[in-house]
Amino acid sequence: MPVAVTVDQVNAFIEANLPFTTQFGIRCDALDEGGSLMRWSHDLRWTRPGGEQAFVCGPVMMALADVGIYVAVFTLAGITPLALTNELRTNFLRPAFGGDLLCRSRIVKAGRRIAYGTSDVFVEGAEHKLVAQSSSTYVMPDAG
Amino acid sequence: MPVAVTVDQVNAFIEANLPFTTQFGIRCDALDEGGSLMRWSHDLRWTRPGGEQAFVCGPVMMALADVGIYVAVFTLAGITPLALTNELRTNFLRPAFGGDLLCRSRIVKAGRRIAYGTSDVFVEGAEHKLVAQSSSTYVMPDAG
Amino acid sequence: MPVAVTVDQVNAFIEANLPFTTQFGIRCDALDEGGSLMRWSHDLRWTRPGGEQAFVCGPVMMALADVGIYVAVFTLAGITPLALTNELRTNFLRPAFGGDLLCRSRIVKAGRRIAYGTSDVFVEGAEHKLVAQSSSTYVMPDAG
Amino acid sequence: MPVAVTVDQVNAFIEANLPFTTQFGIRCDALDEGGSLMRWSHDLRWTRPGGEQAFVCGPVMMALADVGIYVAVFTLAGITPLALTNELRTNFLRPAFGGDLLCRSRIVKAGRRIAYGTSDVFVEGAEHKLVAQSSSTYVMPDAG
Repeated sequence: MPVAVTVDQVNAFIEANLPFTTQFGIRCDALDEGGSLMRWSHDLRWTRPGGEQAFVCGPVMMALADVGIYVAVFTLAGITPLALTNELRTNFLRPAFGGDLLCRSRIVKAGRRIAYGTSDVFVEGAEHKLVAQSSSTYVMPDAG
Repeated sequence: MPVAVTVDQVNAFIEANLPFTTQFGIRCDALDEGGSLMRWSHDLRWTRPGGEQAFVCGPVMMALADVGIYVAVFTLAGITPLALTNELRTNFLRPAFGGDLLCRSRIVKAGRRIAYGTSDVFVEGAEHKLVAQSSSTYVMPDAG
Repeated sequence: MPVAVTVDQVNAFIEANLPFTTQFGIRCDALDEGGSLMRWSHDLRWTRPGGEQAFVCGPVMMALADVGIYVAVFTLAGITPLALTNELRTNFLRPAFGGDLLCRSRIVKAGRRIAYGTSDVFVEGAEHKLVAQSSSTYVMPDAG
Repeated sequence: MPVAVTVDQVNAFIEANLPFTTQFGIRCDALDEGGSLMRWSHDLRWTRPGGEQAFVCGPVMMALADVGIYVAVFTLAGITPLALTNELRTNFLRPAFGGDLLCRSRIVKAGRRIAYGTSDVFVEGAEHKLVAQSSSTYVMPDAG
């Protein structure tokens, strides 16, 4: 099955429809079938005080997971604006600091009514030291 | 037991230490023993397109719950910068639109090592129609 | 709106359809509109070693919440065997010991496709010292 | 780092200390560093009515995840009876039926105070069709 959307289509969609991604500085870097890679560009407006090494605040990681799993749904179903987050849960595993954050999301189960996926968030270059892990279910719009 | 912090102390702390609250436009409105009320002032940068009636994006609600439960810990323990979010989970119940969001948080269990609390998020004036409900555990710093 | 089922109907249903409730010793004590009260009768097969004061094992509390929220859905929708648990999350707050466990569940949002509810689990006689708190979403069968 | 416990030690421990595993029919099949494989032997007392093809009830999967992650902690820390479940969350992905259930658990982060892990539950022979996925945090006993 081909990937149903391109990185450019996703970035155009989120920029137009999810202005919070612009506020945070979140973009899509890559897509595959059932998966997405999102990037948060390091920005001191979203860290605790203390400069480059200060801890990144949790809402950045939750926003990455929320949009990352949403976009991963698009790779299977096409752009689906009305796929709605039902619940999202995040475990914070380590302090995040020192660089951009990347979020690798994967759809584990794409059902007709519910899609379930997970996200791994890490500092660029340290993928094996996750800073957060999320899972989320999305309710798909009525097949009609 | 008296409330260990004032609204002004909390707002000074979050403005200085959690710049994301300024980015979102989140402030503390009220505190009681074990509880907080936080406000997000409606801002089109955090909604989907479409003006005043457009849906507020999920990260706003997750950020309200994260800071709201953190601040509720302060009412019992005093300002505790190193109380760290261990996990946060949010269920999204209804579209949120049309006004400021309020988040009422309550500590359910304040342990020596773990604090657990919940948050109800609603549009101002519609407290009985929750738009989101969160729960979270915080790891308290070592008693040392 | 009247309660759509009786305690006897619920107990007959769960005994016939959810044999795990018999294995655990879980029954329905009471119902109201949108709420249920379930009871686990203390049983040493489900505690750690050490007699009456030994800790009750976590699966008892998770099973109480799962069936309790399911039954609370019935009070609004009638008996709905195909309401399926989408996800269930439990926070364990205190050791549970010394008596029967009660689980008070409440539907927070009953949607057409998703029902969301919460459960408070406590030792009989100590309702203000919760031993566990759960929340869960159920996917409702197609209206079609 | 060697695995800190053997399968026989784990099965002796859970049989002696977690009688619920005997009630369910849950045993440890395999261990590696940071991981466990637990087995639930198919048993009609824990399924909905309808014989071999009837759905397995959710509490079986939650119990597998709870004990599986606990045991995975033992592979790193040694047998730690007082590692306590802080919270456990399960997403139910597909009906489970037709055979034994296996649960593969993995510790993602083993901290001094908090251990976090995940579990994949599947019907034996169908590992790529998960029936449930869980994540959980455990609070480790005081180092002191």
